[in-house]
Amino acid sequence: MPQLRKDPTDERWVIIATNRARRPGNFINREEDLVEQVKECPFCQQHETLTPPEIYAIRENKENQPGWKVRVIPSINPMFRIEGELKRRGYGMYDVIPGVGAHEVVIETPDHIARMEELPVEQIELVLKTFILRINDLEKDHRFKYVLAYKNYGVSAGGGAIGHTRSQLIATPVTPLRIKEELVSAKRYYDFHDRCLFCDMILQEIESKQRVVADHDHFLALMPFAARFPFSIMILPKKHHCDFSKGARNQCKDLAKILQEMLRRLHKGLNNPPYNFVIHTAPFRRTKKSSTQWRTIDADYHWHIEILPRLTQVAGFEKGSGFYINSIPPEDAAQFLREVEL
Amino acid sequence: MPQLRKDPTDERWVIIATNRARRPGNFINREEDLVEQVKECPFCQQHETLTPPEIYAIRENKENQPGWKVRVIPSINPMFRIEGELKRRGYGMYDVIPGVGAHEVVIETPDHIARMEELPVEQIELVLKTFILRINDLEKDHRFKYVLAYKNYGVSAGGGAIGHTRSQLIATPVTPLRIKEELVSAKRYYDFHDRCLFCDMILQEIESKQRVVADHDHFLALMPFAARFPFSIMILPKKHHCDFSKGARNQCKDLAKILQEMLRRLHKGLNNPPYNFVIHTAPFRRTKKSSTQWRTIDADYHWHIEILPRLTQVAGFEKGSGFYINSIPPEDAAQFLREVEL
Repeated sequence: MPQLRKDPTDERWVIIATNRARRPGNFINREEDLVEQVKECPFCQQHETLTPPEIYAIRENKENQPGWKVRVIPSINPMFRIEGELKRRGYGMYDVIPGVGAHEVVIETPDHIARMEELPVEQIELVLKTFILRINDLEKDHRFKYVLAYKNYGVSAGGGAIGHTRSQLIATPVTPLRIKEELVSAKRYYDFHDRCLFCDMILQEIESKQRVVADHDHFLALMPFAARFPFSIMILPKKHHCDFSKGARNQCKDLAKILQEMLRRLHKGLNNPPYNFVIHTAPFRRTKKSSTQWRTIDADYHWHIEILPRLTQVAGFEKGSGFYINSIPPEDAAQFLREVEL
Repeated sequence: MPQLRKDPTDERWVIIATNRARRPGNFINREEDLVEQVKECPFCQQHETLTPPEIYAIRENKENQPGWKVRVIPSINPMFRIEGELKRRGYGMYDVIPGVGAHEVVIETPDHIARMEELPVEQIELVLKTFILRINDLEKDHRFKYVLAYKNYGVSAGGGAIGHTRSQLIATPVTPLRIKEELVSAKRYYDFHDRCLFCDMILQEIESKQRVVADHDHFLALMPFAARFPFSIMILPKKHHCDFSKGARNQCKDLAKILQEMLRRLHKGLNNPPYNFVIHTAPFRRTKKSSTQWRTIDADYHWHIEILPRLTQVAGFEKGSGFYINSIPPEDAAQFLREVEL
């Protein structure tokens, strides 16, 4: 059983993946990385028997057969185990939770297509709707606090070598640290201004235009003013909502459009860079807390998507210090991406 | 002039290095990385004219000549500029500080030696004493809040391709986020327990032994209970002090010994992995704040060194979520390193 352990020095929960533990000798530095060798793509239509039974699929016929549009399966290399009680305990001064959670793979198309942005907008829309449906289902499990919906594309972004576009969902009993940091900052901003931090950001960015990559009716894509990484993009819904699964429900087509456009701009402008995207949303069961506290969180947090292309080595001390250097002003990067001809 | 910009969503300061800005086209994804080509090592003795004039050196003769033991020069590719006023200002909702700071390179030996742990203990001791001397000097500049002392070793850890061992010092007008997080957690722990978090950790780790890599008279080297990365090591002084430059002053030889041992264990056990180390210490001018608040910080923070070998790709979503997966239990990693024969 994997464990979630809390580092007392920064209060960050870390997954210690004992179930997929590697022996210490596996970490010995090698000249070349081992690249996943796959003969048959397990994600393609007709290969349904190569995967574990599906959790969900958009299909009209019988499960685990061809004839689907989007298919969700459990990860064959899960970070969490779905069975088990959520017993918190301490080891002296340390805090531990069993690694109870869910880890699902969303196969975005039955065809062997490598890049999400190659899919038609309608297909990307189905993928987003699948995210929402799965998140709403996982929310019912009271052991879970958060679902991370994310995508790794390209080998060096953790995407693997199988060229079949897919995303992942991880349901966890804790809120990830970056989301927690955002919740804290958003609350502090709201307490001071009585306005949502992200709504203010949308207004200022639309006025200044400098960092805007695309301004659609319902969504804004921008480069953050203090972006940690070159060319990182934030997609924000113009209409305030703290929760992706509720706020995006009726806007999946518009979201699919701007997401596709951003991925195309990155692909064409930067020659197919590896990237990750992560959906940032409010944690579950906000209403269980004292009503005054959580009424504020609904008002002050604002879901969004972060796209992080992997263009530079994270140079050295950044991991150890949390102090990042971005060698291109976001204004220049935004202009470059805006001017990519699609 | 580079800028420090604060991200309002997580209150992290990011260096936007406009002075070493690259054009957007430089980020276009290439198959192979460009490796620094150097004919003559600028850090070797007899090559003093290849570097900017030295800031400091341990030497008995005239400056910028051969005959030194440790030499400190300004970075030729600095992240900060030393000249300029520290004028904070806002751009609408955003906060900006000019990138005033110092960026120095500590050349650890006159000889062309690639790895710090190949130096005699006495030489590593001189390097640590040089860190302290430079930090104490930079502390006098009231624009600076913190000095990051760190080392990047190996190309993929940002260490460059010149095989001449060196470290770096960055003086900044802000406290790096990871240090700030530790200060907050340490304060919270102290407020609750009336004891130092790190002193408690030392006691518990020595008792349990499971994660200890080396237990010397004055220092303890351990793998953190919730280590974010495989084989990351923390070196803690057993005697409480919040400030490296004061606390380590009379213990440089002991610190050199345990640091050398850790680097040797990593080198031998894991076949010369790239790594970073960062010294974590309390920020400057703690006494300027209200006495009650900072009396606590002196008591609750505890300087230490973090060594982070770079053994795995940071897989995808970790940057976007702050949620880390470590695929080897620290207990197994500690045992492996303990058993490396030196």
